[in-house]
Amino acid sequence: MKFLREVGGGVCAPYGFKAGGIHCGIRKNKDKKDLALIVSECPASAAGVYTQNLVKGAPVVVTKRNLANGRARAIICNSGNANTCNANGIEIAEGMCSLASKVTGIDPSDVIVASTGVIGQTLDITPMAEGIDSLYSALGDNSDDAAEAIMTTDTKLKTAAVEFDLDGKPCRIGGIAKGVGMVCPNMATNLIFLTSDVNISPEMLQSALSEDVKTSFNMVSVDGDQSTNDTCCILSNGLAGNEKITESGDSYLAFKKALHFVTVKLAKMIAKDGEGATKLIECNVSGGKTSKMAKNVARSVIKSSLVKAAMFGCDANWGRVLCAIGYAGEPVDVTKIDVTFRSSKGKITVCENGYGVEFSEELAKKILSQDEIQINIDLNMGGCRATAWGCDLTYDYVKINGDYRT
Amino acid sequence: MKFLREVGGGVCAPYGFKAGGIHCGIRKNKDKKDLALIVSECPASAAGVYTQNLVKGAPVVVTKRNLANGRARAIICNSGNANTCNANGIEIAEGMCSLASKVTGIDPSDVIVASTGVIGQTLDITPMAEGIDSLYSALGDNSDDAAEAIMTTDTKLKTAAVEFDLDGKPCRIGGIAKGVGMVCPNMATNLIFLTSDVNISPEMLQSALSEDVKTSFNMVSVDGDQSTNDTCCILSNGLAGNEKITESGDSYLAFKKALHFVTVKLAKMIAKDGEGATKLIECNVSGGKTSKMAKNVARSVIKSSLVKAAMFGCDANWGRVLCAIGYAGEPVDVTKIDVTFRSSKGKITVCENGYGVEFSEELAKKILSQDEIQINIDLNMGGCRATAWGCDLTYDYVKINGDYRT
Repeated sequence: MKFLREVGGGVCAPYGFKAGGIHCGIRKNKDKKDLALIVSECPASAAGVYTQNLVKGAPVVVTKRNLANGRARAIICNSGNANTCNANGIEIAEGMCSLASKVTGIDPSDVIVASTGVIGQTLDITPMAEGIDSLYSALGDNSDDAAEAIMTTDTKLKTAAVEFDLDGKPCRIGGIAKGVGMVCPNMATNLIFLTSDVNISPEMLQSALSEDVKTSFNMVSVDGDQSTNDTCCILSNGLAGNEKITESGDSYLAFKKALHFVTVKLAKMIAKDGEGATKLIECNVSGGKTSKMAKNVARSVIKSSLVKAAMFGCDANWGRVLCAIGYAGEPVDVTKIDVTFRSSKGKITVCENGYGVEFSEELAKKILSQDEIQINIDLNMGGCRATAWGCDLTYDYVKINGDYRT
Repeated sequence: MKFLREVGGGVCAPYGFKAGGIHCGIRKNKDKKDLALIVSECPASAAGVYTQNLVKGAPVVVTKRNLANGRARAIICNSGNANTCNANGIEIAEGMCSLASKVTGIDPSDVIVASTGVIGQTLDITPMAEGIDSLYSALGDNSDDAAEAIMTTDTKLKTAAVEFDLDGKPCRIGGIAKGVGMVCPNMATNLIFLTSDVNISPEMLQSALSEDVKTSFNMVSVDGDQSTNDTCCILSNGLAGNEKITESGDSYLAFKKALHFVTVKLAKMIAKDGEGATKLIECNVSGGKTSKMAKNVARSVIKSSLVKAAMFGCDANWGRVLCAIGYAGEPVDVTKIDVTFRSSKGKITVCENGYGVEFSEELAKKILSQDEIQINIDLNMGGCRATAWGCDLTYDYVKINGDYRT
């Protein structure tokens, strides 16, 4: 049996979690759910990472405060309004925690709150107050409803879960996420809610999450814009019954490996569903002198508007890849760089030692016309690697964002 | 009489300069000029600033070397091929200097060379060698021909010139420029060729130019991609007959003021003609605690894909402006920020003290539908200011860059 088994169920895959999502009326479109609730049946260790943007959504401020003691039991999240840059934002965010508390009996300070949508428009709590009873009734094995309720311009549900063993006990980690605009490296992450039934201390949970996002969500860029509301939280309720993880060791490493599987899967879903995107771009950098060098090069390439537009046009314009490597702020040796494009249709080397090599434009077009593309860069300076994920830049990105509020 | 008078003539406005441009055959389209030459009739002080991208075009390397002694007399530049990431790039760039030398008699080491176009395709010198005699014959008061020959995806000629007085002598500074993709702050600049008949030492000329680009070309972003071939050079041949500028003082300050008028005019032309752009966006930041704070905030806003797309859609989505301020990496006080949109149709305040204020969406739409828009931000933390220029993000940017090479 493999160490990791992918399973269904999303945030409800781990024992002791219920989820639900409803349309309460924040959005005008009645077919779009806009309020989600996730609840653990018992207290859980909790950890979070947040946007590094100085302009922070009110829910980020309240969630940080509520998670300070490393414990939480519920997550409430609305879409359609970011509750950011509003004079009464904190009051509304606290009100949302109180609503969750009212129906679940959980203390408001054990509730994680998040909001996503337009910035700078007052969020009316009335529809949520009126809908909270229905939302509580809708709780069950309904991870997909919660995943749908947190979507904004997302076109696809983003969900993942794995099962693995610790001390002979089956354990699970599940998650849901939303993208897909204002997504950029150097952030904490977008909205990601993770659940687990692993028995782990809050300190080790926070350590695992903080470490993980560096190579998962922080390596995603859709448009270079770092959101004001990015939040990634995990609740781990211990119901799997493993021996409690309180320090580094085999169990902690196994937990981190399972966590990374889920976060990378969600990260790739966010990138692939980037606003207007037609394809997932994965940039693999090897041969870095330092890990920082590999990361910065991967991020610089994945963020380049010109590289992204070329990928949309299936154009093997590798000069733009070299250009983006050159302004990554890392002391690379240009004369050592190799670049290869790869997809399910094959691979093609377009640049060796910093100079172009002859290649078949026809094969390149075929490779780049697939919906998952790899840009593989070997810096040939050392043994460090990094991977970043992004998407192409398309007409639809402009369309979606030229008139988002109306 | 005003201190500065705008005049025609571009790079030929100063005494003793001739320019020309022809189609020699680097480009397939015979209607598009692709080779430019600018010549001073006598030796000139010369200065340059260059791309900071580690991947540098071969012409940048050769020009830097030729300008090391602070003297030059001619500029040769082709469009259609960047002569970058080619194994024989240096040889070709030196060959271009030799061609200019052959017809003008100027030493090859006194020639500035530049190339712009696709990266990573070998540049054939044959069409230039065959066309150099015609180009020499075409030299005259033909600044616009040279300006046209250096255009790539530019849709408009970029030219400017001013006249002013030093020691009672009329002096002139002229310039031509090309944009309009791979244009980003933190660069040295795009291709800009400036001429002047002011008598000034190479040291003071370099000092003036290096200082100037910080608040002119370095404050422009079209797409966040820093080109491999950015070059901004100035030749100043002294024919105006003013007392030689060899140190700071009134004459040096007057020269800098005149230079800044020309460079800002060209910078705004580059921004407004950004690939696919329908409008010029000017971001004015005031109230910065430091000049660096004001600059970084202005650049962060002007680079945001989401702000750019909102401007395309005439959408007063000021939350995206706040978001971009928040990730600018500067310790701003969010609760002090005011934001106003302004154009020839009026102005409208959309955010005060970091929170949204009521405003007329109708008036906002009217203001933002103009082809020159100001985003005015007051940080209310001090007395430092900065201005950055950019453009909107449109369908045509994607179209132009989805299939640039073919």
